Amino acid sequence: MSRKIVAATAQLGPIARDESRTSAVARMIALMRTAHDRGARLVVFPELALTTFFPRWLLEGHDLDRFYETEMPSPETLPLFDAAREMGIGFYLGFAELLLDGERERRFNTSIFVTPEGRIAGKYRKVHLPGHYNHEDWRAFQHLEKRYFEHGDLGFPVFEAMGGTMGMCLCNDRRWPETFRVLGLRGAELVMLGYNTPQHYPQAPEHDHLQDFHNHLSMQHGAYANGAWVIGTAKAGLEEGCELIGGSCIIAPTGEIVARTQGRGDEVAVAEIDLDRCRELRENVFNFALHREPGDYGPICEGADIRERTRAETTRNSHFSDTAAPTASD
Amino acid sequence: MSRKIVAATAQLGPIARDESRTSAVARMIALMRTAHDRGARLVVFPELALTTFFPRWLLEGHDLDRFYETEMPSPETLPLFDAAREMGIGFYLGFAELLLDGERERRFNTSIFVTPEGRIAGKYRKVHLPGHYNHEDWRAFQHLEKRYFEHGDLGFPVFEAMGGTMGMCLCNDRRWPETFRVLGLRGAELVMLGYNTPQHYPQAPEHDHLQDFHNHLSMQHGAYANGAWVIGTAKAGLEEGCELIGGSCIIAPTGEIVARTQGRGDEVAVAEIDLDRCRELRENVFNFALHREPGDYGPICEGADIRERTRAETTRNSHFSDTAAPTASD
Repeated sequence: MSRKIVAATAQLGPIARDESRTSAVARMIALMRTAHDRGARLVVFPELALTTFFPRWLLEGHDLDRFYETEMPSPETLPLFDAAREMGIGFYLGFAELLLDGERERRFNTSIFVTPEGRIAGKYRKVHLPGHYNHEDWRAFQHLEKRYFEHGDLGFPVFEAMGGTMGMCLCNDRRWPETFRVLGLRGAELVMLGYNTPQHYPQAPEHDHLQDFHNHLSMQHGAYANGAWVIGTAKAGLEEGCELIGGSCIIAPTGEIVARTQGRGDEVAVAEIDLDRCRELRENVFNFALHREPGDYGPICEGADIRERTRAETTRNSHFSDTAAPTASD
Repeated sequence: MSRKIVAATAQLGPIARDESRTSAVARMIALMRTAHDRGARLVVFPELALTTFFPRWLLEGHDLDRFYETEMPSPETLPLFDAAREMGIGFYLGFAELLLDGERERRFNTSIFVTPEGRIAGKYRKVHLPGHYNHEDWRAFQHLEKRYFEHGDLGFPVFEAMGGTMGMCLCNDRRWPETFRVLGLRGAELVMLGYNTPQHYPQAPEHDHLQDFHNHLSMQHGAYANGAWVIGTAKAGLEEGCELIGGSCIIAPTGEIVARTQGRGDEVAVAEIDLDRCRELRENVFNFALHREPGDYGPICEGADIRERTRAETTRNSHFSDTAAPTASD
């Protein structure tokens, strides 16, 4: 049986700080219709696709909470689910997740995959949170993901959907080859990811011109070294004064970019992906059973556990921890 | 103190099956002189740089043994060491190593780094052996590295030389991000590697046109994701009827190729490498202490130990094992 799927990367241009979810969802439905017109059955939206990239500001209370989803779908996001089911499209969606675990508030940078039948088949919570914990005055824009999200507690799961083995990750995860490798070892044939990547990297501005190169290098290598398809989708363009890269693309298991967006606004790019092509790599140069040498990889899995590190950070900075609100001293 | 080094990749064109080590060494000394004339103090030669790439044939007895080094330097290789010391150049050299461990013959695909003072400061034995164990009739050329070499028993060591922390690997190792990551975690600022990579990959010939792309993709990503310099050097050109890729290059910690060879013959390319530039990555986006999540990488280090797998292969194939010569049935 053929395992070919026409797939789309559905890039979003900027979302304003005060833009409603209803507006963002309407834009996504329009992209989905374009993708559908080009034959797509699978669409990948960006990370934090429903709102502006709010970790660029120090926020608290309602000003912060309003950027999180407490249910999925919600009344505002249900139209996206309905449109997808009606068109027979499966989709990846990134959003900020807020849940109550007993009395404890938990916040994650999350993605889900929704099947063409409307079932949430996979869920992922971002593992590699970039940025910093505390407000830093010298920055034109903050990058407070380490403050606003917990380390994802689901690892890197794979799931079966649309005839293949699927994996997900988010933004900074793609820079870490361990992300793709764990998914690859679990058999992922397609890795979907969304990103919000500023053009300007304040700690090393001498690399600003390399952001597109690094984005593609990371994803193309992740595809090639694991013989998996990769679809990476940006939120792009000048968002609240902060320029975000585009370069959304579909990458073959050979590492070749086979479709990509051309601008930094709302835009769709489409390609047919044949999941059976993963075998070209996975049965040959990247036949893991024959050629990997895990006995020599020990240091990769060593090091302080994230929970210890988080505890240490929390104690040192007395910042926004599991239940406490940000303190005035931040 | 400045840690800038002018470095060279010293690519070799083909070496004929019957070409002597004396001839190969003379060619390497000529490349070293060219590199020296361009100001280089460090030169990287290819994998198995002293002979033809002999794993392309099924060989036994003296026909096989003659491609291995039993001492380093030997009378034939000493002129290379002498020339390097005289010019004040440190160099990386790949060769086939044969040693006696008690009664047991051991064979490795090995590289060494020799300091400008003539001291062997680092030694590496190839971990990721590509290819196959037994002769396969359908192949125009064999790739019998799994038969002719043991799995390297030194892991991925780093060593101090010329003011920096150095690492080495060989050919197929570069396709595995684990290689660069283990070296990166150990602090490598420069990773040197040699390769012999056929243009034609018999199991997936539809990828033949991608060999140069995959070569650079693997090395550029290894550099970027670990904030390390990489120098990769080919044995290139039409060697005994088998076309080998070139593309030898020097790659900055940003992943940018800053020098590369242009042809497939004996050729030098030179660049100044500043070891302090590694910090641009390692103190920021790839600050391992702040951003790695080893608690989620477990599957990377799991799996059958190489020794178990080798035993299983040896038993199943009754092929060339530690002490036995190839059997006629192969």
